[in-house]
Amino acid sequence: MELTTVDIDIGTRSPTVLMHGSDAATLGLHPLDRVHIGTDSGTVVGIVELSDELVDPGELAVTRRLGHVDGVVEVTPAPRPASVEFIRKKLDDDELERDELDRIVHDIREDRLSDVELGAYVCAMYINDTSLAETMHLSESMANAGETLSWQEEVVADKHCIGGVSGNRTTPILVAIVAAAGVTVPKTSSRAVTSAAGTADTMEVFCPVDLDAKAIRRVVTETNGCLAWGGAVNLSPVDDKIIRAETPLSLDPHGQLVASVLSKKQSAGSTHVLVDIPYGEGSKVSSLADARELAHDFRRVGDHLGMTIDCAITDGGAPIGRGVGPVLEARDVLSVLSGSGPGDLRRKSVRLAQILLECAGADADAGEILESGRALDRFRDIVAAQGGDPDVTLSELVPGRHERTVTAGRDGVVTHVDNRLINEVARRAGAPRAPGAGLELHHRVGDAVARGDPLCTIHAEDESRLAEATDHAERAEPVRIRPPDETLVERV
Amino acid sequence: MELTTVDIDIGTRSPTVLMHGSDAATLGLHPLDRVHIGTDSGTVVGIVELSDELVDPGELAVTRRLGHVDGVVEVTPAPRPASVEFIRKKLDDDELERDELDRIVHDIREDRLSDVELGAYVCAMYINDTSLAETMHLSESMANAGETLSWQEEVVADKHCIGGVSGNRTTPILVAIVAAAGVTVPKTSSRAVTSAAGTADTMEVFCPVDLDAKAIRRVVTETNGCLAWGGAVNLSPVDDKIIRAETPLSLDPHGQLVASVLSKKQSAGSTHVLVDIPYGEGSKVSSLADARELAHDFRRVGDHLGMTIDCAITDGGAPIGRGVGPVLEARDVLSVLSGSGPGDLRRKSVRLAQILLECAGADADAGEILESGRALDRFRDIVAAQGGDPDVTLSELVPGRHERTVTAGRDGVVTHVDNRLINEVARRAGAPRAPGAGLELHHRVGDAVARGDPLCTIHAEDESRLAEATDHAERAEPVRIRPPDETLVERV
Repeated sequence: MELTTVDIDIGTRSPTVLMHGSDAATLGLHPLDRVHIGTDSGTVVGIVELSDELVDPGELAVTRRLGHVDGVVEVTPAPRPASVEFIRKKLDDDELERDELDRIVHDIREDRLSDVELGAYVCAMYINDTSLAETMHLSESMANAGETLSWQEEVVADKHCIGGVSGNRTTPILVAIVAAAGVTVPKTSSRAVTSAAGTADTMEVFCPVDLDAKAIRRVVTETNGCLAWGGAVNLSPVDDKIIRAETPLSLDPHGQLVASVLSKKQSAGSTHVLVDIPYGEGSKVSSLADARELAHDFRRVGDHLGMTIDCAITDGGAPIGRGVGPVLEARDVLSVLSGSGPGDLRRKSVRLAQILLECAGADADAGEILESGRALDRFRDIVAAQGGDPDVTLSELVPGRHERTVTAGRDGVVTHVDNRLINEVARRAGAPRAPGAGLELHHRVGDAVARGDPLCTIHAEDESRLAEATDHAERAEPVRIRPPDETLVERV
Repeated sequence: MELTTVDIDIGTRSPTVLMHGSDAATLGLHPLDRVHIGTDSGTVVGIVELSDELVDPGELAVTRRLGHVDGVVEVTPAPRPASVEFIRKKLDDDELERDELDRIVHDIREDRLSDVELGAYVCAMYINDTSLAETMHLSESMANAGETLSWQEEVVADKHCIGGVSGNRTTPILVAIVAAAGVTVPKTSSRAVTSAAGTADTMEVFCPVDLDAKAIRRVVTETNGCLAWGGAVNLSPVDDKIIRAETPLSLDPHGQLVASVLSKKQSAGSTHVLVDIPYGEGSKVSSLADARELAHDFRRVGDHLGMTIDCAITDGGAPIGRGVGPVLEARDVLSVLSGSGPGDLRRKSVRLAQILLECAGADADAGEILESGRALDRFRDIVAAQGGDPDVTLSELVPGRHERTVTAGRDGVVTHVDNRLINEVARRAGAPRAPGAGLELHHRVGDAVARGDPLCTIHAEDESRLAEATDHAERAEPVRIRPPDETLVERV
């Protein structure tokens, strides 16, 4: 059928075209069917949506994702992409082959799948689970779909945390220790999406973090390490597109998680990787058994990809460190590197660094490197190489000047500090966009407190945000207190 | 956050708003998250998409599905709808309660779910299957979501075929017989989407079919029956929206199919329903066992809804009747009603009519009603009442004047006539939009043919369509011939 194209001002992810219902009926097309659109310069594939309001019969509305298509075009029904047949196959619980996963990853990268199909992919991987072989193939496919970094060094160390714990800013400390020990550790990190700060947000308090591949190489050559934002290098473009379909349903299929992490590590050229798997109430993994299973899969898939993986299963039931929010976490990091700071953050960072050093075959003592000040020196080198002020002091890291302290409503013992609620309070205060916003925790689980004792101090950069966050903290009780020896949690 | 609205010219199904990535980050929003949009006249819910090209920071692009929203609005993150939690629950294979299914159906009707969520719903129902209780609740929810018809009569007969068989135009004959027997049978049918003709397309050769509820009532009062297009009365608005997500993946979850059919029948006020379940190669149900299971579910759910259901499991491995395409099927219908016509179509129509009459408690002989000419008279009454010419003759039903006959390439026996391929040939010839297009079959399975014998004659309304359809028929071989006693089908 010949149709005349009209442009339509919409930024769809996939190559949508709008047709009038009567033209679609003539061609026997359903919504979301594919069509071939023949132009003078070749044929492109569009995904059909119907609209009797926005287009007239004889017209084809073309969105900008489709590229340059204009004038009169020939429209014919096109078969669905092979990747949709493979998603269908996985829905029927058949194992997917390597080339089938390649095809799916390719079509996701090129935005050739509709949201219905992408949703089906995620659900199929979630309900029918992935075999180890599928996870391996998927990791490779995803790694091959993006940019890659490569290194001269035989050992390239790296670290990933599956997330879910507030504070927990171990990465800058660990990278400083490992780099100081002479091991190459080109670390890229994410910004926060739903948390109060990502490592990239915290590091940005010290220095620029959006380094391209060339800048990363330069910083690593100078210092053995870097602390960059991963978004400026396109290591796993498919990952974000899959996450888009996982998030609305809070699905995080096991195999997809492993493939997502390890494909990025492979693209980054890493050879020895430590994965931090926190578990506990309010974190991503709820039981030790699940954490162990995930760790085994990371190791086996890593092995297949030629990487050495070590996993640390850690306590994820409560925040790590004192501060939550970019500046407040940066203060914790600088304190620990300077020899003081929160004990749990210091201890966890040293433990993880030691495991990674051992995994990478380096004969070095992480605790000694931290205590000697060599880690701090190396951290300052990295900050300088990335364009920040290497001489920054704690007094220059100023949290939001509007502050209020929430106090204990009763005598008792702190029995739980809730990651999710702490996050919400910090975000309401303005984190991570307002770097000084967030909160400081004055107590850890197990501490005895008296009525009126300070529990946490909320910081914000303006008064209305402060009021909103304080309100939330007083209502939601992110820090739970019970009388000593009380085991009843709630009567429902 | 305060944002200024801009209109965007896009006809999305769900209430999409576009935000700049930086604003979304400030609010901690992912793509497909919900937001509350506060205006002077109240709050509406939008589904977020990100675009740094189409909107600037501080702007909110609003699509027309959202209704009237303009000026500066207050945007805050909103929780996901409860229905999404219920879809998540079904993904985890938990049975859904009545009120949970109500909620899902309600949100689908109101277009409150994104395509990712709709895809997940269909996949969850497909992979995790539906219990009988779920199918019952779903049927009720879907019936309650649309318009309804109601009748004075105690017995209202109806019929549905789950489809997949070419030709097979039993409905007009059956309705004529049942109405002539004095039983009320207000039949609404669909148009073809991927087949060569729906009953509504075929009936439109005789008379107008887009009757609203009032017109249906008038025709039924005059004649006991009608043969209308269902699209003009909005009996199950949710069904089309669910089918939209099923089609791209060719999913047709069992429970969803039963709920879809029976909810429409309940909305139509039917009390006694015959369901035709063809099975065999190339139809929707492939084995007798599956057909039986489906039949049992139809009966049990119908029982729950207060309807009496009878199911006919029929041979669906080959087309029924001689013609495929609106005019050619109309010729078959008129021939059978006039006492001749294809034997398989006549026999099947009489058998189904007899079952429906018995189910409805009518003491009448379907064969006698047909042979006596009373069915033809009643058919002409219905055509007249719907505004067509009651005196139409076979010679006035003229197929497309461009025709070509495909002949047997060898001596042998017809072993298979493929529904799907026959459909494709008829559609390439122009059916159903060109009513005269389609094909006539000259042989049935089991017939002996000699090389050069005519197999089928293709009709089209223009020469280029004819050439395309003939080409396809010669390549795809919809009519398979093997030497007598040959059991080898293909060597691969």
